[in-house]
Parts: sequence; structure tokens; C-alpha cells
Amino acid sequence: MNILVILGHPRPGSFNHAIADAVCATVTRNGHRAILHDLCAERFDPLLTADEFPEQGAVPDPIRRHCADLQAADGIVIVHPNWWGQPPAILKGWIDRVIRPGVAYRFDEGDNGKGIPVGLLMAKAALVFNTSNTPADREQTAFGDPLDALWRRCIFDLCGVRTFRRQMFGVIVTSTPELPPISWTTSGLN
Amino acid sequence: MNILVILGHPRPGSFNHAIADAVCATVTRNGHRAILHDLCAERFDPLLTADEFPEQGAVPDPIRRHCADLQAADGIVIVHPNWWGQPPAILKGWIDRVIRPGVAYRFDEGDNGKGIPVGLLMAKAALVFNTSNTPADREQTAFGDPLDALWRRCIFDLCGVRTFRRQMFGVIVTSTPELPPISWTTSGLN
Repeated sequence: MNILVILGHPRPGSFNHAIADAVCATVTRNGHRAILHDLCAERFDPLLTADEFPEQGAVPDPIRRHCADLQAADGIVIVHPNWWGQPPAILKGWIDRVIRPGVAYRFDEGDNGKGIPVGLLMAKAALVFNTSNTPADREQTAFGDPLDALWRRCIFDLCGVRTFRRQMFGVIVTSTPELPPISWTTSGLN
Repeated sequence: MNILVILGHPRPGSFNHAIADAVCATVTRNGHRAILHDLCAERFDPLLTADEFPEQGAVPDPIRRHCADLQAADGIVIVHPNWWGQPPAILKGWIDRVIRPGVAYRFDEGDNGKGIPVGLLMAKAALVFNTSNTPADREQTAFGDPLDALWRRCIFDLCGVRTFRRQMFGVIVTSTPELPPISWTTSGLN
């Protein structure tokens, strides 16, 4: 199987990089193919322009290659830190530019003339690994953990990927190599 | 008063631009000063680097100027389309780079040694205007309207701006000049 791994963290050697490395090693060890995109390392351009926006818009080759990897993926793994309840801008740009109409979803005409999105991705499952410096209980009570809705409901469910698991690692800033982050959220596992 | 207006939409002439123009005209007409940043027009660089990340990190001059405008604002207005329940990447990058520790918030030592964020912004209120192609009822039931939590709870409440109003305009794609978008959400007004 092809497993697409998308990593969005600016510092080589980060805990996010370690997660992505562990994902790729596990995928390979199990006889599958890991396709890793370290967005910061490859200097991914996150800016969706007005020309590129329409389904028949002008899509540059690097984005077409990302779209092809997404379409060919049997599984998708996303790794990023929790910055303001959202992914870093570089990964938001990957969402804006790569999760395109005609690639990841299309609109069908509904009964009332409203467009109904239909998922097009063939991936069977998506995993999201996040890191956070906010304790899990505060993330829930103060912020409502928006990352779960963003990835599960707004993106993967819409694109037809209904098997979804998410794991938040934290608190990173106070963790040590001897005492890895353990206050995992469980919300993403339901 | 100084009213900071942040616009994140790639197409000049968009409905988002019209909203921002109306905001600036109204602010000026009422005797106040509008400071508009059209992020796409000014080619704002959305990528927060590892060097810039720490509170004492290397912050480039354009970002320092954005930070100064944010600190000097008596009111803040944000205008952007709803892309995947989030702002476009260019505006996410403004959040990542400009809403910095020491500028918009700081961490106090909590009783249990955990850092407690304390808001530093002097702005009295924040308004967020969004546009959407998703009907308001579907936004709530299918996606949970994550933009409200992102701006209200994750950002402005944390930074000390407790008066918050939000308005979603839609459905834009089926609207006409004669029939402006009217299916406004009310969630942001509560």
C-alpha cells in the first residue's frame, strides 16, 4: 500500500520529525511504501492564488505532483504541532492547494440546487498526529480542541475518508527524553 | 481610535475586499483611523521559521511593524473566506508570526508550574467577518463551525480581547448583486 505522510514543522530534529520518521519506518517495515513530504524542507509554497482557485484553474506542476500523491494514497498520515488550534500556515497551504475540487472532492447537484460535496479520495484511513504545549484538559475546556473537527469533519469526512484516528502528544515543552509526553488526549480515538 | 483591519483573500474585487472597504470607510467616517493590511496585496510571507519562534527570536522588520500595529490597535477587524473551517494560509501565517509571545500574550507561572497564558492586547473588541459557500445550517451540523472557536476562544480570548462579534456572509457562490447573501449565521453574535 501507498502511505502518504505529510509533515508540517519548521525545525529539523523536532518531535514532529521523530513522529514522521517512526511512521515511515513502521510503514516500510510492514512491507508498504511511505511517501514523505516534509513541507518545510521542500519549501512548499502555501499561497493559493485566484488563478489556481477554480477546478479548471492553472495548477503548477509541484501542486499536480502533490495531488497525484494524494489520489494514489491508500492511507494518509498528517503530523503537525497545534498552533492556535490549527496547523502551521505551510500545512494550511497544502490543504488549500492540494485538497482540490476534482482531486479530493466534487460537487453534485442537490435536490434544491445546492452543491453537495462528494468525496473522491480512495484512501481507506487517515491518521493525524499532533503535538501540543497545552494540557489536554485545558485544550478541551478552554479551546474545544478545534483540530479534531478540522481534520475529521471539515476535511477527511468531506473527502470520503471515514476511518479517522487522531493522537495529540503533550505537553512537549516540559517533556524530557526520559519522560516522554504522556498526557494524551483520547478525543481523537472515538 | 486605531482600528486594525486584516484582510486575507487573494482576488482583488472579491466580496471580502468589499467588506474590508466598507469597514475602513465606516471607521474613517466616524472619525477614527483605519489601518488596513491586505495581506495578499502586500505579499505577506506566512512562514514562521524555527529561528523566529522563541520570544527572543530573530523577528524581521516587516513582522515587527505588524506587531506594532497589533499592539497599538484599539479595535481589530479580521476579514477572510471560510476555507476548510479555517482562514487561508496567508492569514494563518499572520496569526503564527504576528500574534507573538511578548506582543499579544505572555506566560505566567501557574500554581502547578504550568504556564498560564495572560493576554497583552489593549484592543477593546474584535470583529471577524467571514464569507462562505456552505449554507449556515450545514456549517453547523456537518462541520461545527470551527472558525468561531478558533477566533473567539483560541486567539482573542487568550490575548485578552473579550468583546468579540462574528458574522458569516453566505452563500456567496449563488449570490447576485441584486440578491446579496442573506443566510447569516447568528452563532457569532452570542
